[in-house]
Amino acid sequence: MSEAAQTLDGWYSLHDLRAMNWTAWKELSSDERQAAIQEFHQFLNKLNETQEKKEGSHALYTIIGQKADFILWMLRPTMEELNDLENEFNKLTIAEYTIPTYSYVSVVELSNYVGGGDSNEDPYENPYVKSRLYPILPKSKYICFYPMDKRRQGNDNWYMLSMDDRRELMRSHGLIGRKYAGKVKQIITGSVGLDDYEWGVTLFSDDMLQFKKLVYEMRFDEVSARYGEFGSFFVGNLLEEEKIAQFLHVN
Amino acid sequence: MSEAAQTLDGWYSLHDLRAMNWTAWKELSSDERQAAIQEFHQFLNKLNETQEKKEGSHALYTIIGQKADFILWMLRPTMEELNDLENEFNKLTIAEYTIPTYSYVSVVELSNYVGGGDSNEDPYENPYVKSRLYPILPKSKYICFYPMDKRRQGNDNWYMLSMDDRRELMRSHGLIGRKYAGKVKQIITGSVGLDDYEWGVTLFSDDMLQFKKLVYEMRFDEVSARYGEFGSFFVGNLLEEEKIAQFLHVN
Amino acid sequence: MSEAAQTLDGWYSLHDLRAMNWTAWKELSSDERQAAIQEFHQFLNKLNETQEKKEGSHALYTIIGQKADFILWMLRPTMEELNDLENEFNKLTIAEYTIPTYSYVSVVELSNYVGGGDSNEDPYENPYVKSRLYPILPKSKYICFYPMDKRRQGNDNWYMLSMDDRRELMRSHGLIGRKYAGKVKQIITGSVGLDDYEWGVTLFSDDMLQFKKLVYEMRFDEVSARYGEFGSFFVGNLLEEEKIAQFLHVN
Amino acid sequence: MSEAAQTLDGWYSLHDLRAMNWTAWKELSSDERQAAIQEFHQFLNKLNETQEKKEGSHALYTIIGQKADFILWMLRPTMEELNDLENEFNKLTIAEYTIPTYSYVSVVELSNYVGGGDSNEDPYENPYVKSRLYPILPKSKYICFYPMDKRRQGNDNWYMLSMDDRRELMRSHGLIGRKYAGKVKQIITGSVGLDDYEWGVTLFSDDMLQFKKLVYEMRFDEVSARYGEFGSFFVGNLLEEEKIAQFLHVN
Amino acid sequence: MSEAAQTLDGWYSLHDLRAMNWTAWKELSSDERQAAIQEFHQFLNKLNETQEKKEGSHALYTIIGQKADFILWMLRPTMEELNDLENEFNKLTIAEYTIPTYSYVSVVELSNYVGGGDSNEDPYENPYVKSRLYPILPKSKYICFYPMDKRRQGNDNWYMLSMDDRRELMRSHGLIGRKYAGKVKQIITGSVGLDDYEWGVTLFSDDMLQFKKLVYEMRFDEVSARYGEFGSFFVGNLLEEEKIAQFLHVN
Repeated sequence: MSEAAQTLDGWYSLHDLRAMNWTAWKELSSDERQAAIQEFHQFLNKLNETQEKKEGSHALYTIIGQKADFILWMLRPTMEELNDLENEFNKLTIAEYTIPTYSYVSVVELSNYVGGGDSNEDPYENPYVKSRLYPILPKSKYICFYPMDKRRQGNDNWYMLSMDDRRELMRSHGLIGRKYAGKVKQIITGSVGLDDYEWGVTLFSDDMLQFKKLVYEMRFDEVSARYGEFGSFFVGNLLEEEKIAQFLHVN
Repeated sequence: MSEAAQTLDGWYSLHDLRAMNWTAWKELSSDERQAAIQEFHQFLNKLNETQEKKEGSHALYTIIGQKADFILWMLRPTMEELNDLENEFNKLTIAEYTIPTYSYVSVVELSNYVGGGDSNEDPYENPYVKSRLYPILPKSKYICFYPMDKRRQGNDNWYMLSMDDRRELMRSHGLIGRKYAGKVKQIITGSVGLDDYEWGVTLFSDDMLQFKKLVYEMRFDEVSARYGEFGSFFVGNLLEEEKIAQFLHVN
Repeated sequence: MSEAAQTLDGWYSLHDLRAMNWTAWKELSSDERQAAIQEFHQFLNKLNETQEKKEGSHALYTIIGQKADFILWMLRPTMEELNDLENEFNKLTIAEYTIPTYSYVSVVELSNYVGGGDSNEDPYENPYVKSRLYPILPKSKYICFYPMDKRRQGNDNWYMLSMDDRRELMRSHGLIGRKYAGKVKQIITGSVGLDDYEWGVTLFSDDMLQFKKLVYEMRFDEVSARYGEFGSFFVGNLLEEEKIAQFLHVN
Repeated sequence: MSEAAQTLDGWYSLHDLRAMNWTAWKELSSDERQAAIQEFHQFLNKLNETQEKKEGSHALYTIIGQKADFILWMLRPTMEELNDLENEFNKLTIAEYTIPTYSYVSVVELSNYVGGGDSNEDPYENPYVKSRLYPILPKSKYICFYPMDKRRQGNDNWYMLSMDDRRELMRSHGLIGRKYAGKVKQIITGSVGLDDYEWGVTLFSDDMLQFKKLVYEMRFDEVSARYGEFGSFFVGNLLEEEKIAQFLHVN
Repeated sequence: MSEAAQTLDGWYSLHDLRAMNWTAWKELSSDERQAAIQEFHQFLNKLNETQEKKEGSHALYTIIGQKADFILWMLRPTMEELNDLENEFNKLTIAEYTIPTYSYVSVVELSNYVGGGDSNEDPYENPYVKSRLYPILPKSKYICFYPMDKRRQGNDNWYMLSMDDRRELMRSHGLIGRKYAGKVKQIITGSVGLDDYEWGVTLFSDDMLQFKKLVYEMRFDEVSARYGEFGSFFVGNLLEEEKIAQFLHVN
């Protein structure tokens, strides 16, 4: 049996993707829509308050294409809080005019492949580690989210590799990521035992092309080329709160 | 032909996962919803009575993410009883406001890989075995459920391995499980010939991270790395009966 | 090219699986439901008459889990008769309250792997063969149905094996089946060119555990281990006609 | 790079499969249903006129099982004509009571594997070739339709074989087909670049068992055994125009 | 790690495929339909204006078969503009009578496999490159769209090949394409990191058979034969604006 990687685990995570049911939404009166938007803002205000207290974070982006119209990504210290928020959102009026299209349950994760920490120190007390495990999500212009697995097929079986081989492969993989420092912010959430893929990858950038360049360059790296299995990709634009009314405006 | 593993089989099992149709639920009057909740409690009371008599058991958890809003897991001595309960639930008012999203049919199972029982004793009379085959489900804070297969592909064909090889592999696999004793309670249900995967795995814990740690550590073990094929993962929070009204409360 | 197996083919077969739309069903008045049940019984009476004349057979079972609520399996000498029955059922009132969830089109089949018949005799005149090709379905307590393929992948390609190899493999496979004689009745229907899998397997038993034991034991046999590809498994309980009213009863 | 096969291409083809929404259909008044049937007959009359002029052809069959209730297969010289017919059908009253379940876009195809034509002759002027490329569809009792691919996997990669190897394989494959001459009429439509599989196969016969025998025998031939990938199979009974009213009759 | 290909990236792209909900559309009054068509034309006029200013381009085609009734393909300099257009379309009256069936998010792409540009020149200033990256879409009679991947399986792993091997393979692949110059116009859009496949391929031609010939010939080339994985294929006819009213006309 190969040595398992060790992980540090931070906030629990729910990616919630929804399509708008525009037809039903248009059937509401303008006043009813206004009230629903208002109620949605109150919900977001609550999320903002939590974020200001650094007891969680969240991001709201529109999604391009038919896979969804928007994504609400929420991070919280416990699954109970996440589940409560999910249910609270589901009971909002606006939720009646959305169609669930995808969701992802995971937890912010750092792995020990990266080495680091030659230490007696409790990593959970390290300020850098803490900022990575309990991240306040950026307001970048673009988001990219996709779930992924490490392959276990025939001769391409990640989990049968030795720890040393995996660490070496991840190291060179990480070098690519480092080239995009400052251009793309990446947050890894682990989902083994929690959802259908093993990880969720969420990228933020102010230049959408960087998503393509980063993922494409990585695909030629052995970690992705031989061992990566990818789910659906979702990309979108920042939905600032002051633009929600416009996004939801119909005649 | 390889020697087949022998199994001991206990209560029959139905995992029933449902999403709430919140939009329709909100259209009911408050009184109608109250009556539906009341009726649901009566159904659960009946399940509780059966459980007190140790003639079955059940668990009720909310589920995080869009795959379902709650799971009702029921164990009974016969498939007729399970089917009757399923139909009874389906005819409740609350069921009209749910959308079936997944279900799993199986039977609580112990395999002879674990060795044990060098005996003339009837294992079905062994008190420890009985407690495992007819388990009263715990009220742990968290649940994790997923179905799985043993792989039969090219050189990774579990069913072409000798009994000795399988037993040795399962032994080391079991050692990992043992490390989580006291942290995670695992119940295996067999479904070969009963449902689409070969086993259902249900985990209970008071620490959700333990699900991730356990499943991730096992994935590096050859039994999972080379031979495991996994279905969807569902995780959730205990839904205590006194919290049902709150869970179902809408304005 | 390998020599193709020869088959004897009997009655055409339609497995028709339906979920109940309980919500809509409950919206009917008690009288309307009564009339619909009555009409369904008349349909079943017609099937019974055909069966008494040995011009066909059928079975009606509830199904456990969300994949369906019941299965109606019908056997007839021609596809026209089957299609007519399917349409007749579809036009019943009860059918309006069902949701089609799966169906399977095939023909009762015996293969020459079993050897037998060293003869100039017309096998279609052999009484034993006739009883197998034109079976009156039993009223066993339980049913199990699943479709399957023989694998054609890389080195595991059933259709590239010689006739002798296949016959030898099937012989040892048959030995397992024989151990379950008296416990499980198996009916094979062929569907190459008729539906998406190559065979349908329908098992009857008065002990549901025997389905699991039989299928599990066979899985270690090379025919299944290397060459079996399985579709969905459906299991259920006999729905005797006098219990239909109770099955469909709602308040 | 292997030499590509050459094809001759005839009429464009649309297989259009529909389920009936019997519940909605029954909600119409008897007069409304009569008018819808009448309108459908007018549409079919138009198709018949085109066929009489040999400017196209079509076939109408009921389909057994839940995958569809009927198939309308239409052949025309251009995709514009096909698309117009599709839209015209979609706008009929009867279409409102159907649910699209599958369709297939392709073009009648002959390949040069068959050899033939050692000639300076324009094959499109050869009467036999013309009768195959622009076929008037028979009124056989049964239809069988399925799409298929040639496999490209590991060592089983059809498109990496030499032209000579492919021709030799196809030759022996064709010998099987020839054994069914007079019993089964086969029409191949090519769909590379047009739909999700590479070919559609449509078989006609007055004996449904011949579909099973033909496809099963071919499966042992290397072309299918190693290189065939099959989609869904649909089988059905001729729906003669004078039986449409009966097919659509409800109380 | 293999050297990644370099790409030049032009306009962002959204392929938006919709089926018509003819039943609902017919329920509108003739005036309501007229107004909806009028509003759709206004939307298209806006697209035309953008195109005249060369600040984007678009194409509108009907689609044959049940996968969709039409495709609207839009190209824009930013994802914000694309997303705004998508939302604007979604809020049109006509959109209420469409069912989203598929969409694809990508960006017009040129790769350096083609060699070219031995230069210090900024390729984005090269007029030929610009015409390819910011193409005004042709009004050809036919369209063909499909997404695709390069395979990463066992010995057929494109991303483990050296840059030289890939360039040589792509060169011979390109030679096939060149044979179709003047007959088929091909636009490649890259979607690594943006959507579920790695590329979208859109072909235009005045002869639909050329789609089949091109894709089929390429399939025998090693790039496709060993390394191509294809999604769904969609083909259709040009929907000229003056024919929209006719396309949408119902009695």
